[in-house]
Amino acid sequence: MKLKVKDMDIATGLPLVAIVNKKDANKLDLYYEDRILIKKGKQCVVAITNISESNKFVPEGKIGLCEEVLKKINSKTGDSVNISIVSRPASLSYIRKKLNKGKLSYKEFYEIIQDIINNRLSQVETAYFVAACYTHELDLEESVSLTKAMVNTGEILKLKKYPVMDKHCIGGVAGNRTTMIVLPIVAAAGLAMPKTSSRSITSPAGTADTMEVLANVNLSVNEMKHIVEKINGCLVWGGSLNLAPADDKIIRVEHPLSLDPVGQLLASVLAKKKSVSATHLLIDIPLGKGAKIETRKKAMKYKKLFEEICKKLGIQVKVIITDGSQPIGNGIGPSLEARDILWVLKNHPNQPYDLREKSLKMAGIMLEMGKKAKKGQGYKKALEILESGKAYEKMSEIIKAQGGKTIGPEKIKVGRLRHDFKAKKNGTILHIDNKSISKIARASGAPQSIASGVYIHKHAGQKVKKHEKIITIYSENKSKLNYAVEILDKINGIKVVS
Amino acid sequence: MKLKVKDMDIATGLPLVAIVNKKDANKLDLYYEDRILIKKGKQCVVAITNISESNKFVPEGKIGLCEEVLKKINSKTGDSVNISIVSRPASLSYIRKKLNKGKLSYKEFYEIIQDIINNRLSQVETAYFVAACYTHELDLEESVSLTKAMVNTGEILKLKKYPVMDKHCIGGVAGNRTTMIVLPIVAAAGLAMPKTSSRSITSPAGTADTMEVLANVNLSVNEMKHIVEKINGCLVWGGSLNLAPADDKIIRVEHPLSLDPVGQLLASVLAKKKSVSATHLLIDIPLGKGAKIETRKKAMKYKKLFEEICKKLGIQVKVIITDGSQPIGNGIGPSLEARDILWVLKNHPNQPYDLREKSLKMAGIMLEMGKKAKKGQGYKKALEILESGKAYEKMSEIIKAQGGKTIGPEKIKVGRLRHDFKAKKNGTILHIDNKSISKIARASGAPQSIASGVYIHKHAGQKVKKHEKIITIYSENKSKLNYAVEILDKINGIKVVS
Repeated sequence: MKLKVKDMDIATGLPLVAIVNKKDANKLDLYYEDRILIKKGKQCVVAITNISESNKFVPEGKIGLCEEVLKKINSKTGDSVNISIVSRPASLSYIRKKLNKGKLSYKEFYEIIQDIINNRLSQVETAYFVAACYTHELDLEESVSLTKAMVNTGEILKLKKYPVMDKHCIGGVAGNRTTMIVLPIVAAAGLAMPKTSSRSITSPAGTADTMEVLANVNLSVNEMKHIVEKINGCLVWGGSLNLAPADDKIIRVEHPLSLDPVGQLLASVLAKKKSVSATHLLIDIPLGKGAKIETRKKAMKYKKLFEEICKKLGIQVKVIITDGSQPIGNGIGPSLEARDILWVLKNHPNQPYDLREKSLKMAGIMLEMGKKAKKGQGYKKALEILESGKAYEKMSEIIKAQGGKTIGPEKIKVGRLRHDFKAKKNGTILHIDNKSISKIARASGAPQSIASGVYIHKHAGQKVKKHEKIITIYSENKSKLNYAVEILDKINGIKVVS
Repeated sequence: MKLKVKDMDIATGLPLVAIVNKKDANKLDLYYEDRILIKKGKQCVVAITNISESNKFVPEGKIGLCEEVLKKINSKTGDSVNISIVSRPASLSYIRKKLNKGKLSYKEFYEIIQDIINNRLSQVETAYFVAACYTHELDLEESVSLTKAMVNTGEILKLKKYPVMDKHCIGGVAGNRTTMIVLPIVAAAGLAMPKTSSRSITSPAGTADTMEVLANVNLSVNEMKHIVEKINGCLVWGGSLNLAPADDKIIRVEHPLSLDPVGQLLASVLAKKKSVSATHLLIDIPLGKGAKIETRKKAMKYKKLFEEICKKLGIQVKVIITDGSQPIGNGIGPSLEARDILWVLKNHPNQPYDLREKSLKMAGIMLEMGKKAKKGQGYKKALEILESGKAYEKMSEIIKAQGGKTIGPEKIKVGRLRHDFKAKKNGTILHIDNKSISKIARASGAPQSIASGVYIHKHAGQKVKKHEKIITIYSENKSKLNYAVEILDKINGIKVVS
C-alpha cells in the first residue's frame, strides 16, 4: 500500500512508531503494535504501528512518522512510501515463553535485549518482559545469560591492565559516598579502577552527581580508557556511555510499579562491571531499616546470588553486608557530599568519621583482593595512603584529567538559605531515618540544585544538648526550603530520647 | 510550576498524556509516567507524564498536551497552566499486589477497571495488570469480582422482560454463524434476546460484520431497549455501546503477545452478558484441532469455570462442548455467511445443513431453558418455528427495526472474481483446517471487503470426484485473489484421501 508521509514532529527516543489512519489499517489488516516495513526507494525500516482514530491526527492515505523513522529512510512530509506487514520479532515469542514459566537461553535473552536497545520492542512489550522476569524469577544460568546478553549488546572497555578493580553498592543509604574515597586510595596503590556511576533517580544525589561538583563526568569510553591507562582511575557517569545500554530502557518501564526483579537487578549491575572488563569486584549491601535491603535473609540471598553469578562470569567477588540503618557521612546532596569527601581526603578535622572508616575498610579489602596488601594488612595500607596525602593527590589528578580544577573543601559553595533543626531537650539521638533525610534533601532542591541538601550534625547514638543543632537544611530557593522544613516537621524522621 | 501550553495535535484515544521537557521534568523531579495535576484557573485534570529529550518536540517552559487533556481544561496553545506532582493512583498498588501473588477484592478490581476506562492508567501499567492476571490465575471469587467490576463501570441495559436469553461462542471456528439463526427462533418463540456481538479482529468475519450486510448494527443502548421490548430480539455491535467498556482497552495490550488470561477472558465474556441483564445463557465451546480450544481437558476447565462463575452472578447457564474441528456452514466472509443464513431461514435447498442442525440444537436448548418447550421438546419446537417460516419473519422484523431492508439470499452480492479449487482425483475429504480457511478468506479481502471470502462445497467426510469443486475463493480485487490462491497452494489446509 502506498501512503504519503506526514512528519509528526515527534522525537522522544521512543520505539520506532508509524501512525496509520484506522481506515488504512483496516484495509491492510493492521492492528496496534503490528510491525510494518516502510520502504522509500531502496531504503527501508521496520516500525511499530499505532492507529489514529481521528482524521485530523493522521488522515486516510497518510502515514505519520516520528523523527527516528524519518531519519532512517531519509524522508520528509509529502514523500510517497510503500508499506507492508511483517511478522513479529522472535523476541516476542521468547517473552511469552518466559511468561509461561519457560527457561530462556543466552540466545533468546540476547535477541530480547537487542530488540529493546534498537527500539524494536514497544514499551508494552518490554513491560511484559519485566513482568515475566519478576513473576518467574531467573535461575542462576538465566541470570548469567541475561548479564552476558546485556554486555554483548553494548560497547566494552578493554584495558591493557590487570587486575581491573570495581565496586558497587546496592544503595538506599543517604550519603554513603564511599566510592570517591575508595577510588583514589585504590588507584594510588597502583590498581586500575575504571569506575562508572549513576546519577540520582529518586535520591538526593548519585555518585556521578557528586563527582560532577568537582569534574566533568560525561566522558566517552575512549577517554575513560586513556585516563585509566595513564593514572589508574576515573569516575564517569555510566549513562553517557554505551556500556550495557539496555538498562535505562528497562528501568523506565519498571518505574510505574517500582518493580525490580532480582535476576534483572543483578544482571544489570554485573553487566556494567563486565562492560568495563572488571576482574575483581567488591559489593556492599547496606542492611537496615530504610535501606534498600531491610532483612538479613534478603541480604544473604543477594550475597549468594552475586557470588554464584560472578563465579560463572569469571569475576572475583567479595560481598560485604554493612550497617545501612542511618545516613553515612554528614552531607546529603551533591556539594555537601563533595565537601565531606575532600575533608576526608585532606584528613581535615571536619571530616565525617563514619564515612572515613567505612571507606578505609572497603579500600583495604580491595587492596588485598588486588594483591597490593597481604591478607589482614589492607586496612593499614589504605590508612597509610590516606594519611600520607597520596589519596588526595590521586583524586586531584583524576579531577584534572576529567577537566576539573582542584579546589579546597572550604571553597565548595553550599546553599545560601538555611534552616537549623535543634534539639528541644538534652538527650541521645535514637534514629535518623534514611528515607526521611533523602526526602527532605530532595525537597530542598537536591540534586538539581547541587548546593542544596541536608547536613547532619549528630548521628544516631550521639548525645545532644538542648538547642544544639541536629541537622541543617541548605537551599537556594525560599519556597523549596519552606517545603523541606514542612516535610521535616511532618515526617518525624529524627528520634531523640532523653 | 507555570508552563505554556503547546497543542500537540495528538488524539488517539490513548491515556491522558502531558509532555514536559527534560529540564522542567528535572526541576520538578518528574519521571516517566508520574502523574501531574494541570490547572488552568479553576479547571484541572490529572495526566501521565511523558518526557521530551528534544527541545524541538517540547521546549523548556512548555507543556505538550493531547486533545483529550486540552478539552478537559478547555485550553489552547499559549495558555498558561500550573502543574504539580500528584501521587500515583491506588490501582497501581493493587496491580503490584497481584503481581506479587496477592488476591484482589471487588473494590480493588473496580478501581483498576475504572482507571483503565478513564485513561488514568498507561498502557504499560495496563500490561502489568494483564501479566499479573496471566501469571497468577484468578480464582473463582476474583473472577466474579472482576466481572462485576467490568459491569459496574459501564452502562447496563435494563429490560421489563423475564427471562432474558443470551448465547456466547468461544470461537475459533470458521463460519459457525449460529447466532443469526438461533436469535430469530428464540425471539419468535416469545423470549427476549438483546444480543450484542463483536466484529472480527483476526477472523474473516464477526457476527456483527455478517449482520451488517443486512442491517445497521451501530445502535445505542436505548435503541436496543426499544427494539427488544417491542419485537424481542436485536443484534448489535457491542463495540459501539458503553457496556463493560474496559474490554477493548485490555484486548489492545494483550494483542502483541496474544495473551488471554483465562479469568479475564471469562470475566469479559460474562460482563457483556450481565450488562444486558441476561438471566439465561447458553455457552458453546467448539473443541477440535484449529479451534480456540484444542483439548477436552481445557474445554472441561472452561465449562466448569463458566458454571461456577455464572452461579455466583445469578445467571442460569448451560455449557455445551461441540465439534470445532472444521468450518461450519459453507460461506466464510460477511456476505457469503449472510447468504447461508438467509437460505437456512428460508428452508432453501442451498442451505448448509451442518449450520442448520447446530443452530436448531442450540435454539432447542434455549427454548427449554426459557420454558417455551418442555424438557426434551426444545429441538422439535425450534424446528417448527424454522420450518413454518416464523424465524424468517422474525429476522425480517429485526432487520427492519435496525434500519435494513429484507432482501432475498440470491440478491446478496458476492465477490466478482473467483477461483475454484478442484479435486485432483476421486476421494474423500479428510480434513478442512479452520485456521487455513480463515487465512485464505482474510487474504481474499474479508471482512473489510464484505463480498470476499471462501465458499466450501465439500466438508470433511464427504466424497469428491476428480475435477469437482472443493472450495471457491471470492474476491473483489485481483491481487488479493492471487494472494489468497498463493496461500491456498502453500498451506495445504485441505486433505483428500483416495
